[in-house]
Amino acid sequence: MLLYWMDLLGVAVFAVSGALAAGRLELDLLGVLVLASLTAIGGGTLRDVLMNRHPIFWMEKPAYLLVICLAALGTVLYVQLQVLPIPLQALLVADAIGLALFALSGAQLAEKARLSPLIVVLMGTMTGVAGGVMRDVCSSQVPLLLKQDIYATAAIAGIVLYLLLKKARVPESWAFWIGLVVVAGLRLSAIFLGWQLPVFRLAGTA
Amino acid sequence: MLLYWMDLLGVAVFAVSGALAAGRLELDLLGVLVLASLTAIGGGTLRDVLMNRHPIFWMEKPAYLLVICLAALGTVLYVQLQVLPIPLQALLVADAIGLALFALSGAQLAEKARLSPLIVVLMGTMTGVAGGVMRDVCSSQVPLLLKQDIYATAAIAGIVLYLLLKKARVPESWAFWIGLVVVAGLRLSAIFLGWQLPVFRLAGTA
Amino acid sequence: MLLYWMDLLGVAVFAVSGALAAGRLELDLLGVLVLASLTAIGGGTLRDVLMNRHPIFWMEKPAYLLVICLAALGTVLYVQLQVLPIPLQALLVADAIGLALFALSGAQLAEKARLSPLIVVLMGTMTGVAGGVMRDVCSSQVPLLLKQDIYATAAIAGIVLYLLLKKARVPESWAFWIGLVVVAGLRLSAIFLGWQLPVFRLAGTA
Repeated sequence: MLLYWMDLLGVAVFAVSGALAAGRLELDLLGVLVLASLTAIGGGTLRDVLMNRHPIFWMEKPAYLLVICLAALGTVLYVQLQVLPIPLQALLVADAIGLALFALSGAQLAEKARLSPLIVVLMGTMTGVAGGVMRDVCSSQVPLLLKQDIYATAAIAGIVLYLLLKKARVPESWAFWIGLVVVAGLRLSAIFLGWQLPVFRLAGTA
Repeated sequence: MLLYWMDLLGVAVFAVSGALAAGRLELDLLGVLVLASLTAIGGGTLRDVLMNRHPIFWMEKPAYLLVICLAALGTVLYVQLQVLPIPLQALLVADAIGLALFALSGAQLAEKARLSPLIVVLMGTMTGVAGGVMRDVCSSQVPLLLKQDIYATAAIAGIVLYLLLKKARVPESWAFWIGLVVVAGLRLSAIFLGWQLPVFRLAGTA
Repeated sequence: MLLYWMDLLGVAVFAVSGALAAGRLELDLLGVLVLASLTAIGGGTLRDVLMNRHPIFWMEKPAYLLVICLAALGTVLYVQLQVLPIPLQALLVADAIGLALFALSGAQLAEKARLSPLIVVLMGTMTGVAGGVMRDVCSSQVPLLLKQDIYATAAIAGIVLYLLLKKARVPESWAFWIGLVVVAGLRLSAIFLGWQLPVFRLAGTA
């Protein structure tokens, strides 16, 4: 139950990030809704299609779509009214929590389908990051994910830890929360301490 | 039966719009076919995958692909021969009819799968517009849909009206045709009268 | 068995081409892995989703993902160490073989699902080329496929020949190998002899 509410929170946070991207592109209201939805449910939808889970999670529970609409329209109102500055730091923290939630819940679903550990890590990571990739592709940009890898790397590290803890007979719920904290913590450290992975350049050879 | 023919007409119209986009990108003949196909069957394919309807509609009836090939090659010939100017206005009308047909038929399929009204509206709209989004993403452009929202908005309005009419016990076929006329009418009004939704700008705050 | 190894070879070759594209975009290490994976398994994944084949091929056999990781990291090391120049010609030959393998094996899977010949050709071609399209869309470029059509055209020609030979009662394994050689041969001829399809321009009319 707590997880369901945290899942809705993750959807709301990603919807806000999609709506802000739409504002940068100067889209109209419907474009805002579309980009917010893609960002919020793109990852989970891809996971469900690849794992043949039907109905897709948002088809059963319209709450997801309602939360997205509210979050997107709330973002537009908030920006238009200019009451307060946009709390970018708060958004980054929320985004890190959303990533952590989606990654761990995606991994658990893949585990229940008895997929191999490598695929569990991949499915969880994909659930966490694919929505942002779709947002960037639709915005006609090279996906941020590809340039900013402590994002997906944080998800991978947290999921691997979760699997190792379970293997070491740590109770599942403990392993879940520890994995969650690690994903969000790594992501926030990367942002606030400027951590990066090495970059691969062809410049010297091409 | 009439619907099947109108569906093929919708596919043909969208194929022409994809082929014209390919001409603007100076693609070769195969690129023309690929972009025409994506535009014409992308929306319905996404709908079928998400709703787990198999086989996908064009796998059963090769007529769809044949119509796309004919429409795309016909467009190339017509443009090369330069017999007559390209009837852009006729195309816009045909595109509006295609949008209306796809939106209403997609909504009906979602209804038959007993999905909730919110999802029915979403599925119908997606059937109508996703092909155009794929065409634009492959052309490396911000999807027109996101900038030109009376497009999807027209689909949403027509499907909502269709559902309300059915709720009010209007016979299904009447509700269908009224919805169809409303989608196409709104879309054409938006084009010829310059209707637009408000735009969301972050400029003042970013 | 031989086919399974050749399939892995095809995956490795496409992973290298994705990793080189990532190098051109100056992505970090994870971006390299993501782009390599998309390129290598994107086409087969799309085929499996559209044909409702579950589990998706790489979910059953983690060997695919391991090969991709090795090929991508090997590419990065090779380029960084600058021991030898990048053997571009060798890569083009390997890419042509990968295309041929994916196209023919995709076509055979579609045949086994008793799809009509037109759809068999489409499915095979899509298996061969869709990964490269996804690589280009994620790199925010107009897909090479759309501009460089002897690529997909070679796949189409080889698959059609394979189907015709089978119809003429040539044994399936012969038809398969002949189709394979034709796809790779046409592709390499197009590269080294500069063959192209006619281009469609709207310039004169738009």
